[in-house]
Amino acid sequence: MELKEAGIGEGISEVIVTTKSASGMPNAAPIGIITVINEGTGEPLHFVKLYKGSQTLANVLETNMLAANVTDDAVIFVKAAFEHLSEAHFADFAGVPVLAKANAWIAFTSVLIEERSDYLHFQVLPRAVKINRKEIKAINRGLNAAIEAAILATRFDITKDEREKKEMRKLMERYAEIVKKCGSRREKEAMGILKEKFFKGSGF
Amino acid sequence: MELKEAGIGEGISEVIVTTKSASGMPNAAPIGIITVINEGTGEPLHFVKLYKGSQTLANVLETNMLAANVTDDAVIFVKAAFEHLSEAHFADFAGVPVLAKANAWIAFTSVLIEERSDYLHFQVLPRAVKINRKEIKAINRGLNAAIEAAILATRFDITKDEREKKEMRKLMERYAEIVKKCGSRREKEAMGILKEKFFKGSGF
Repeated sequence: MELKEAGIGEGISEVIVTTKSASGMPNAAPIGIITVINEGTGEPLHFVKLYKGSQTLANVLETNMLAANVTDDAVIFVKAAFEHLSEAHFADFAGVPVLAKANAWIAFTSVLIEERSDYLHFQVLPRAVKINRKEIKAINRGLNAAIEAAILATRFDITKDEREKKEMRKLMERYAEIVKKCGSRREKEAMGILKEKFFKGSGF
Repeated sequence: MELKEAGIGEGISEVIVTTKSASGMPNAAPIGIITVINEGTGEPLHFVKLYKGSQTLANVLETNMLAANVTDDAVIFVKAAFEHLSEAHFADFAGVPVLAKANAWIAFTSVLIEERSDYLHFQVLPRAVKINRKEIKAINRGLNAAIEAAILATRFDITKDEREKKEMRKLMERYAEIVKKCGSRREKEAMGILKEKFFKGSGF
């Protein structure tokens, strides 16, 4: 099953991964799908690293299922990282919860291939793909900066080194400037949520 | 004429701007199209800043025409910034040269609205739009980093302050790491060209 048309190409694709617990409770989190091309056959192979302590990992261990939601909505990335998405955001696709508004859905089954000290490494096998909406979007540095800011924010709390934290604050200021200069309302809203939900409590 | 469907939304859209001289010689350069929404009417207005000394400005002053080429090909961004694109890259659209492989083309006429010390500020009025290819692409941090690296590289030579240059080198290393970790072959190729064509001569 070729996922390129659904937006998952070589390298790391930043998507919202949705899962459910054995009891059916949905969860969403921004996660990278790692795609490696098998040099021999030209076939793409897909992997994820799921960190210990995360709800996504708990759910995948219970159900062996996850879905990748392809979107370029910065607000959804920030909300999935720092808030609990309400039931209204979800739909069902092939038995897995997905984000109703995503541009594409890919349902995977998971195969554990390695346990590391802080994460479990899975190969993920696509079993259903749905393309909801194709579009054209010029590169917007504000979108890129908002996504980088969200990723940085998720790492700020687990960083102990003060020098590194200072460096992160400087980068965050740079991202905020780029969003202000280049972003649309949507990216500005995403940075607003990041500031509100996160920076205050973390000394940003 | 609504350009959102062609990929030009609110904020700054990074595109390849193509122009021709009065004698018909095509040129391509990465430039941001600035889109501001008129709060009263909800209509988008589009602007560009064209820097003095650039071929794009010379051509626009001669012809009052330019085209925006919407693409997410990092290699084309780097090549348009630092190399001369061969004739084979170009097609014609509504009398303006465009990049044959772009996802969308927008042909504009230009109206000079302000002269500043280092650039001329134009409003650009869309007069023809062509959508060639809609697609879905998950966010790839490697693509974002390659574009940021290309923008940074165009600014490195005109930066005189040594402290600022040091900061730029550090950022460039960060981008190169992200491309290596997250990018596809295409973004790695773009970083390779940047290193080859640019870094060596500039002391990166």
